[in-house]
Amino acid sequence: MKIGVDVMGSDLGPKELLKSCLRFVNENDVQLVIYGNQEELDSIDHPRIIKIPTTYVLTMDDGPLAVKRHPNASMVKAITDCVAGENDAVVSAGSSGALLSCGVMISKMIPGIERPAFLAAIPNTIGTSTVLLDMGANSENSSDHLCQFAVLGHAFAQTTMNIEHPTIGLLNIGTEDKKGDLVHKDAVAKLRAMEKINFTGNIEGRDVLNGVVDVLVADGFSGNIALKTVEGTVLAFNQMIKEVIKTNRLTMIGGYLIKEELTKMKDKMNYQKYGGALLAGLNHVIIKAHGSSNEEAFYNAIRQAHKLVGGNVVDKIKRDLL
Amino acid sequence: MKIGVDVMGSDLGPKELLKSCLRFVNENDVQLVIYGNQEELDSIDHPRIIKIPTTYVLTMDDGPLAVKRHPNASMVKAITDCVAGENDAVVSAGSSGALLSCGVMISKMIPGIERPAFLAAIPNTIGTSTVLLDMGANSENSSDHLCQFAVLGHAFAQTTMNIEHPTIGLLNIGTEDKKGDLVHKDAVAKLRAMEKINFTGNIEGRDVLNGVVDVLVADGFSGNIALKTVEGTVLAFNQMIKEVIKTNRLTMIGGYLIKEELTKMKDKMNYQKYGGALLAGLNHVIIKAHGSSNEEAFYNAIRQAHKLVGGNVVDKIKRDLL
Repeated sequence: MKIGVDVMGSDLGPKELLKSCLRFVNENDVQLVIYGNQEELDSIDHPRIIKIPTTYVLTMDDGPLAVKRHPNASMVKAITDCVAGENDAVVSAGSSGALLSCGVMISKMIPGIERPAFLAAIPNTIGTSTVLLDMGANSENSSDHLCQFAVLGHAFAQTTMNIEHPTIGLLNIGTEDKKGDLVHKDAVAKLRAMEKINFTGNIEGRDVLNGVVDVLVADGFSGNIALKTVEGTVLAFNQMIKEVIKTNRLTMIGGYLIKEELTKMKDKMNYQKYGGALLAGLNHVIIKAHGSSNEEAFYNAIRQAHKLVGGNVVDKIKRDLL
Repeated sequence: MKIGVDVMGSDLGPKELLKSCLRFVNENDVQLVIYGNQEELDSIDHPRIIKIPTTYVLTMDDGPLAVKRHPNASMVKAITDCVAGENDAVVSAGSSGALLSCGVMISKMIPGIERPAFLAAIPNTIGTSTVLLDMGANSENSSDHLCQFAVLGHAFAQTTMNIEHPTIGLLNIGTEDKKGDLVHKDAVAKLRAMEKINFTGNIEGRDVLNGVVDVLVADGFSGNIALKTVEGTVLAFNQMIKEVIKTNRLTMIGGYLIKEELTKMKDKMNYQKYGGALLAGLNHVIIKAHGSSNEEAFYNAIRQAHKLVGGNVVDKIKRDLL
């Protein structure tokens, strides 16, 4: 297996991401094909790392035209090579917008799916994972997009989580079918009419983490708000617990006694561990890692690509949709 | 001061809310005017409680027509009396939709404001409060609505929090001005052009709790998603910490040692303590308590009405807007 890695365009720079590459290739029997500026690539060397020097880095200011204009941008080259079979998946921590443009123009949409969605399986409080999509690939969606996301999520849960009839919910501002704006009301009616999926109804923000459904479909705007709000609240809580423990000597001893279990709990809700988001709906495995990925987060994004390619997930989703 | 209380239409029933009324009137030098079915009112008695028997309870299935058709519904009568000066504010845990209809039709919008917004000051991690609106009175909003919410939030923060130039942010899916759908892009441009307010830009979900702005403006859909996601995550965390502490004897001792400080922290983030949401933009103080309010939550909703009437908040907001 060959995983393509675009090491350019992240907040912490290529050096941080190259550390993840080196660790991953040392720990796993795979080849990595790394795309980036020559001087960055010069700093790394491994028998199972193939280096492809590129000469441009797409940014969030680059629109679709730039994808055509810069065939030698790291992201463009990585995905073009993926389509040509030179690598089996692409991982990037570069601009989301640019990656979406590259994905749609080069890998192209699976027939029947109009828009890609950021998809991730996020940890929930019942100890399993909830597939959430779209987490922000789109800033607005039609009810048909939401139905297509449901089909993608259904196929993803079946394929990667071995759930035969995954339950599917729609993120909305109330549980009743008539809640929300026109797009969501319309989507509920359409989802209820789809025989192939097991749609259980609307889900409110307070149940995002409770594992009440296997797949939570959201429009890109509210999916993004919900995910980032969970992340922010988790961080705030971790910070507050730290302060509770630091209060005085007794609380410090208390903190010491619960430390091991507390760390396990924090690990469970550590979103860095869960790698990046799959650009679901494209013909290839393209993973968006967080722009601020550190070594661990980017390592996990590569690991996720590895797992999805190993499980033949995109092919299975495509077969399932046809 | 006379506070009107509609005790009908909540999930836990009038008995629970009447407990809050009795406690409130015992602890505060106010009169309560209570609206509800005769048999419910019979169960309570206090020299400073005035009982107004009503004969109908509006539900979420009652549209605007029902407001006209049922002048003797508890909610309709309470707000009609408020407009007539028979009470100074109304608190209800009944249907949100019905309360909004009553508010708009009977109390009416402040000139210049087209839509009411659910507004609350929610606790943040820096120990102050963040004014959040709209938390779900609307399922979709125009950019003009968002600008009006900013003006309402500005006036509310000035009036109740004594902040001369409150900072204002817009909840969006990215921090750059061009992020989001057309409504949000347009709103950012308009908010930047408003000289009267101190607009600092877009705020992502991860900063909702961080107190980075005094006022966080959101469209009703994403404001509702964000608020409920915070609530859900807080509940999930409290549950997980409980399990951490229950793991074994040592963690139980640890839990005992941090218990006092942990309770303080939980109290700080306990949304039940913060009462209900103000229907901002109306001519009177109308407070929506949560449908599932228990005695404490409803008590706090009455307390909030008491505070807002005492501070003359709606009059000050109106004066500020003119």
